[in-house]
Amino acid sequence: MNNQSVDEVLLKRGWGKIKWTGSNMRMLQGLSEEFSADKPFAGLTVGVCLHIEQKTASLFKVLAAGGAEVVATGNLGTTNDDIAAALNESGIKVYGKRDDTRQEQIENVRKVLRHKPDLLLDNGADLVALLVEADEFSGQKVIGGTEETTSGGNRIREEMPDKVSFPVIVINDSPLKSFVENKHAVGQSVLESFLRITNLMVQGKRVVVFGYGWCGKGIAKYFKSFGAQVAVVEKDPIRALEAAVDGFRVAETEAILPWGNVYITATGRQGIIRGEHFAHMPNDSVLANAGHFDYEIDVPALVEQSVSVEEPEEAIERCTLPNGRCLTLLSHGRMFNLGGREPKGNSAESMDMGFSLIALSLECIAKSRYNLVPGAQPVPHEINLEASRRMLEIMMA
Amino acid sequence: MNNQSVDEVLLKRGWGKIKWTGSNMRMLQGLSEEFSADKPFAGLTVGVCLHIEQKTASLFKVLAAGGAEVVATGNLGTTNDDIAAALNESGIKVYGKRDDTRQEQIENVRKVLRHKPDLLLDNGADLVALLVEADEFSGQKVIGGTEETTSGGNRIREEMPDKVSFPVIVINDSPLKSFVENKHAVGQSVLESFLRITNLMVQGKRVVVFGYGWCGKGIAKYFKSFGAQVAVVEKDPIRALEAAVDGFRVAETEAILPWGNVYITATGRQGIIRGEHFAHMPNDSVLANAGHFDYEIDVPALVEQSVSVEEPEEAIERCTLPNGRCLTLLSHGRMFNLGGREPKGNSAESMDMGFSLIALSLECIAKSRYNLVPGAQPVPHEINLEASRRMLEIMMA
Amino acid sequence: MNNQSVDEVLLKRGWGKIKWTGSNMRMLQGLSEEFSADKPFAGLTVGVCLHIEQKTASLFKVLAAGGAEVVATGNLGTTNDDIAAALNESGIKVYGKRDDTRQEQIENVRKVLRHKPDLLLDNGADLVALLVEADEFSGQKVIGGTEETTSGGNRIREEMPDKVSFPVIVINDSPLKSFVENKHAVGQSVLESFLRITNLMVQGKRVVVFGYGWCGKGIAKYFKSFGAQVAVVEKDPIRALEAAVDGFRVAETEAILPWGNVYITATGRQGIIRGEHFAHMPNDSVLANAGHFDYEIDVPALVEQSVSVEEPEEAIERCTLPNGRCLTLLSHGRMFNLGGREPKGNSAESMDMGFSLIALSLECIAKSRYNLVPGAQPVPHEINLEASRRMLEIMMA
Amino acid sequence: MNNQSVDEVLLKRGWGKIKWTGSNMRMLQGLSEEFSADKPFAGLTVGVCLHIEQKTASLFKVLAAGGAEVVATGNLGTTNDDIAAALNESGIKVYGKRDDTRQEQIENVRKVLRHKPDLLLDNGADLVALLVEADEFSGQKVIGGTEETTSGGNRIREEMPDKVSFPVIVINDSPLKSFVENKHAVGQSVLESFLRITNLMVQGKRVVVFGYGWCGKGIAKYFKSFGAQVAVVEKDPIRALEAAVDGFRVAETEAILPWGNVYITATGRQGIIRGEHFAHMPNDSVLANAGHFDYEIDVPALVEQSVSVEEPEEAIERCTLPNGRCLTLLSHGRMFNLGGREPKGNSAESMDMGFSLIALSLECIAKSRYNLVPGAQPVPHEINLEASRRMLEIMMA
Repeated sequence: MNNQSVDEVLLKRGWGKIKWTGSNMRMLQGLSEEFSADKPFAGLTVGVCLHIEQKTASLFKVLAAGGAEVVATGNLGTTNDDIAAALNESGIKVYGKRDDTRQEQIENVRKVLRHKPDLLLDNGADLVALLVEADEFSGQKVIGGTEETTSGGNRIREEMPDKVSFPVIVINDSPLKSFVENKHAVGQSVLESFLRITNLMVQGKRVVVFGYGWCGKGIAKYFKSFGAQVAVVEKDPIRALEAAVDGFRVAETEAILPWGNVYITATGRQGIIRGEHFAHMPNDSVLANAGHFDYEIDVPALVEQSVSVEEPEEAIERCTLPNGRCLTLLSHGRMFNLGGREPKGNSAESMDMGFSLIALSLECIAKSRYNLVPGAQPVPHEINLEASRRMLEIMMA
Repeated sequence: MNNQSVDEVLLKRGWGKIKWTGSNMRMLQGLSEEFSADKPFAGLTVGVCLHIEQKTASLFKVLAAGGAEVVATGNLGTTNDDIAAALNESGIKVYGKRDDTRQEQIENVRKVLRHKPDLLLDNGADLVALLVEADEFSGQKVIGGTEETTSGGNRIREEMPDKVSFPVIVINDSPLKSFVENKHAVGQSVLESFLRITNLMVQGKRVVVFGYGWCGKGIAKYFKSFGAQVAVVEKDPIRALEAAVDGFRVAETEAILPWGNVYITATGRQGIIRGEHFAHMPNDSVLANAGHFDYEIDVPALVEQSVSVEEPEEAIERCTLPNGRCLTLLSHGRMFNLGGREPKGNSAESMDMGFSLIALSLECIAKSRYNLVPGAQPVPHEINLEASRRMLEIMMA
Repeated sequence: MNNQSVDEVLLKRGWGKIKWTGSNMRMLQGLSEEFSADKPFAGLTVGVCLHIEQKTASLFKVLAAGGAEVVATGNLGTTNDDIAAALNESGIKVYGKRDDTRQEQIENVRKVLRHKPDLLLDNGADLVALLVEADEFSGQKVIGGTEETTSGGNRIREEMPDKVSFPVIVINDSPLKSFVENKHAVGQSVLESFLRITNLMVQGKRVVVFGYGWCGKGIAKYFKSFGAQVAVVEKDPIRALEAAVDGFRVAETEAILPWGNVYITATGRQGIIRGEHFAHMPNDSVLANAGHFDYEIDVPALVEQSVSVEEPEEAIERCTLPNGRCLTLLSHGRMFNLGGREPKGNSAESMDMGFSLIALSLECIAKSRYNLVPGAQPVPHEINLEASRRMLEIMMA
Repeated sequence: MNNQSVDEVLLKRGWGKIKWTGSNMRMLQGLSEEFSADKPFAGLTVGVCLHIEQKTASLFKVLAAGGAEVVATGNLGTTNDDIAAALNESGIKVYGKRDDTRQEQIENVRKVLRHKPDLLLDNGADLVALLVEADEFSGQKVIGGTEETTSGGNRIREEMPDKVSFPVIVINDSPLKSFVENKHAVGQSVLESFLRITNLMVQGKRVVVFGYGWCGKGIAKYFKSFGAQVAVVEKDPIRALEAAVDGFRVAETEAILPWGNVYITATGRQGIIRGEHFAHMPNDSVLANAGHFDYEIDVPALVEQSVSVEEPEEAIERCTLPNGRCLTLLSHGRMFNLGGREPKGNSAESMDMGFSLIALSLECIAKSRYNLVPGAQPVPHEINLEASRRMLEIMMA
């Protein structure tokens, strides 16, 4: 390796990752072949604001194969420099780098829009918002776009109701995402991350899962399947009953604290584990958050209460409480299935499905199929059916 | 027993069953106590058309405890004479007996309506239909009612759209029924019935489940949990994908026939296993239907094809095909979790939940709560929440 | 049916059962074909003392197909008259009937021995004991035999150490019985019987399993797979640790009593649930014994403590304690997977395996294979291998 | 970090790891407290030949707490330099480093023996062999020792039968190791490593597990619990039958190759997946070995057959066959649950149990308990009971 420049190393690593991950994204492979023949995006520019990493790279390449000029930037802090290097080499324009400030990242979004994209591939609605709100882009037209997140969809619906004159398909509202990604893929990656970061034995652990939505269901299921005893805390009585009938102990937070020794939040809501809770957990309990935002566990309160906080290994903080007990916090309370060394996130195949929904949605917009309306809307049922058929065929091959 | 008359034996057996089952229906017990104090049905008559058996008996008693005069008849062929005897003894008027003809049963429905009920508790919409359609009852008013089945609800919506001027709450549309009853309780009773009727080892069996709705999910899950290898046949691609991600083999009917050795239908649709299929099943395969109607397996075609049909034990038919293979049909293709000797049906607790939805719905109608509208409508969300809370409290007690 | 005599009804029912069960015992079917050709028992008489029911019937027929004259009697109270009728019709001599007294049953054993059997098929060592101890049979020779039970094997080893000059193969010592029968088949039949007798929902129940031997492992596993929360009480620390690592809560009896609501004993030891325990169980708890003897739950103490004992349905006793709580005892504390109405016992295929071990063992004795020694001894390893291969081939067919 | 020397960084990282892992080894913590009071090793030197990593560090510290002078060296290539640095700082003498040659490692073993240890803690019997065979140590006495591996125990029994005049307790023969470590801990770490290295979705994968010993049982169980369809290949018919009854498809290698898409070996035997097999696996199949030695998959044959071999990411080799299919080999066919980036190996708690068996065994040798005999022998039953009790108490705390 001594004869290679740093850039060559970066490029090689980037291409290696893209190659391996791409080989496991067969829905995108299939779309790539079809789009290469059909060229649904011929003459069109796709503006992208999405994590720049080894899985999204395959998506970008599919769009390019379909004739699109792809211009992209990452979300804040989610640009992998080795992947960006490889993409740039392949002719996909990528703006920005991992260490960009929020200001630099907004400037990158602006740069993408200056390419006058015909289609938008958004994640959090930054592209859409800037387009419809900034004077610079006033009058600039797009055919339509996709938005990855439910919250981005809500942002469009609530913050710019009359301004979005083009269709935006909200990917996360697809029922496929609920079970493929939120239940099974997140459940898998949460357990994998727990094992990878802590090296603890799961068998016999007493795990409290907060939230019994799709993510909580997956987490509870997979920890149980590994021999943990699992309790569920869930405010909604109907979901709580479902957890009970599914065989889980169901309890209120206060009652279950002294019982558990692992606590995982997946509610999407703030302040689930709070300052008054920590003292009631047994010594050496582990706390981790699997929700999108880092506000489910009140980490500032934990740190403030602690007599000492040590970090013996990456993503492992040992907080000693005044009562002498030591709590272990994973990944600083941030989404810990993306934490620790060498995190992988959700499985390649689950992302393959989600990105194929994007590719098929952009194709349908480009071809004006399925009676789309202006503004945020769910994935057309035909696309859900089509994606299901394709994924099923690959799984059963 | 020699000194007792047949009636005494019948009564004793009826009361024994009611007592045991009732002791396991604690939601109804709780409602009985509350209704005894509140008397929400004071001065009201409840007209009932529902199976007369040991679980419904507890429901009738709750209504009576709430001050109602209860007048009931069974659905066709579903009246247990020992239970009817016990109920009549306790002051609940029951018309009809197990062997009634369809004509006699309709007359019984008529007799119930002649009591001028204020509330209807219907199962298949026979009471509602006769009330709004028969000249005899023209002008007779009711406050409202409940309908147990989705198909009864559809009958009201489609066949008598403008005629039903009172609210009818359709119980089966409650989301609680989906997981408590259709998934878990039916899954449990289907596996129990398979074991009870056949005495076969489940471990290692290759089971094909047709349909991956709530019932199919439960059946697939419980057979797998008993060590069977399970494949799923499902036409809807989204559900089929869910089955695949849940870990089941997913296949087309024709492809999977030679693989299986147990075939269970739970689609709700007609002609799932047809004449052209039987010859492709291995020798000694078992066929059973868990769907409501007996048309999922084409039994007439099977019988016609067979060289011989023997019935070595109750609910077990051995059909020898021209190719020399012998197929075992359970319960004549009828809902086999209600078949064989000593069938029990769904668990007491699951029925307790469903009947509590009825009791709470009738109470809300009697008290004019929750802005009900005329015609068929789902269980009010407040009642779903209330029932969830009550069941959960009992399970966690 | 009115034109048939009682005997004809009995015969028809007996043949029906034998036919259905026999069709699921394919190892015996295969042996029957081979023995029909080889006639390993030509000229030999096999004396049998074993339950006379639909599964053993297939075993007797295999021996007869192999050329044996089979002469049989049942254990006390285990003779099914319909099966006995059918067997007698087919030329297998069966002595005794269900209602025989212990004295009559011993006389039946004597009658079997008077046929001067060459081979013994024993269950509890009554045949062997009478042969070597009764003056009447002094000097009567046998080639060898099989003993079904471990306790029968111990009886031979301990009570008649020098008297048994012929080999007796103890079937239950085979490792195949541990997992096929004790773990999986008993686990299955215990859960099935719980459902069949009680009609209770398993999901969410808190089940305490006493004993984590092979039977306990199966019971714990299958209840857990049905959504119960399961705790294990086990005195041996190594087994208790295995239960914990398998994901079960492990606890001492006293500590776990207030937690559970179902209690199942499977230890093989006396006095597991005792007089001092009952008052600590929650209201409506269910007690059941799956061990061979009825002494694991101290039923006399329970009855004595109870203010009242009612039996609302067969095999269900409701015992009201002075503290007002009501406990439900199944099958009077006797092995409840053989209790209630229409019990089926272990699956046909699991018994097929066990009976094939008997048939292969008798064949090896008749042919003087595998260096057998006088007295009780385990199943030869070659037979275990042979039986495994045969069962596996059938399961994977 | 720029002000710290490399050694300071190394030391800090070493102590961090030891601290975190040690906090999860509570059996050793308990022994440390007891040994600190009792000093069972006062005045004794313990010579160690064992991996030098963060888990063994806790074991060494327990021995030191018990009064022992501990002198250690690693097995070939298993010395972690950060841990060695930390141990040396704490007064435990460690010879050698990760990059030592076989010759240097033998010299390190020699150095350990020159300290005239009273007790040996061996892993592979290198210490024992050199002591009894090298002239240099002729006449040097030890009280006794422990040997970690079954193969080391066999080496003592077979290669130096009369030479070992002191007791050597073989740890791996303990029944606790079978289920705690081989089944559950290996099963967990194999699945974790598969996820960490490949980032593939397990749900729906068709996994072939070779071998159904304790390790194979764990691997099969955990992959199934994650929604894979699992088939087992096992030569021993009894184990194969157990796999079938446990619900797995059982098949011969040749028959199952076209079905699978993941193949994991865990037999302990050579040449399980051979040259003639590769061409029959589907495109993109994954091959991995979980057995101790790297000879279960014939990697040289695979490489030789391949048209090209690429390594897109660490521990992932993509081998393109002449038939155009690409196979993915993990960790070069070496024990892949110790492969890839950031491998963790078996869980801290499972190793805690195994190391406590060592500590208790060395204590019993030092105190001449339990009638030990010269030569290799299993862990005394009393120690198995004691270790079970301690682990159980911690798990249920």
